[in-house]
Amino acid sequence: MNDTSNDLSISRTIRAPRAVVWKAWTTPEHLQKWWCPKPWTTQIRGFDLRPGGSFDTLMRGPDGEESSNPGVFLEVVPQERLVFTSALVAGWRPGTPWLSMTAIILMEDEGEHTKYTARVLHKDEEDRRRHEEMGFYDGWGTCIEQLGELAAELAR
Amino acid sequence: MNDTSNDLSISRTIRAPRAVVWKAWTTPEHLQKWWCPKPWTTQIRGFDLRPGGSFDTLMRGPDGEESSNPGVFLEVVPQERLVFTSALVAGWRPGTPWLSMTAIILMEDEGEHTKYTARVLHKDEEDRRRHEEMGFYDGWGTCIEQLGELAAELAR
Repeated sequence: MNDTSNDLSISRTIRAPRAVVWKAWTTPEHLQKWWCPKPWTTQIRGFDLRPGGSFDTLMRGPDGEESSNPGVFLEVVPQERLVFTSALVAGWRPGTPWLSMTAIILMEDEGEHTKYTARVLHKDEEDRRRHEEMGFYDGWGTCIEQLGELAAELAR
Repeated sequence: MNDTSNDLSISRTIRAPRAVVWKAWTTPEHLQKWWCPKPWTTQIRGFDLRPGGSFDTLMRGPDGEESSNPGVFLEVVPQERLVFTSALVAGWRPGTPWLSMTAIILMEDEGEHTKYTARVLHKDEEDRRRHEEMGFYDGWGTCIEQLGELAAELAR
């Protein structure tokens, strides 16, 4: 359980307080602006912020590509910790994800700013490698930068 | 989400009050006695009764067959509702189950006795059918009878 060899982790400092980062994350109107790397766009199809509640996004690329990501929230600790997975969908039903993963988002104080960490758990080494080769670090890194820009705006 | 066509459900009256049925379910020493149809035996490898906590059983058949079932609890409402899944394992990591399922256990008063319902959610029709053909109704029915016998004893 403490073996992290099938995980991918990324961490950044966001120049806004945790309360603002939390707001930018958990308000669908804000979330859809930073959730995937531009020029891709996000449609929030489900956002029920409680354990077992739907978290369902549809991402669209500039050439009509689509990526559907139904899932559920597992843990919601305001301004601290958010856990969601693609292995289950709303009502706790097992899902049929293109990539099975659980994401653990942590927000910690870093002076007046926020240390933001996303740790993504995979079922095995193959899925971890596949996710890394798809561009995990660039993709999630870009999204966190977009989140940081939005949060900095909201904090002004 | 309210579509139950990929579910299997079984319901029985247990001649013991809910408090006793809950105790027989959530005490590993009791649980191992009724969890799988005899003469199969159950070894409880993980039993951490909280959302995200391990629920991990190993069943052994009389000819040395083994069935390993790691999973986690998702909801724990004492004497009322217990939800667990094989789609995730301890620490919320996606699992690699031989059958992906979520079980919702409900306990309701029926006079001085308990109406016990197990509803099992599958990801699709194929898994539902496979589980039914493996003998879901007989298997889970037998276990509930074994639970009922033990609970009736404990209630005496």
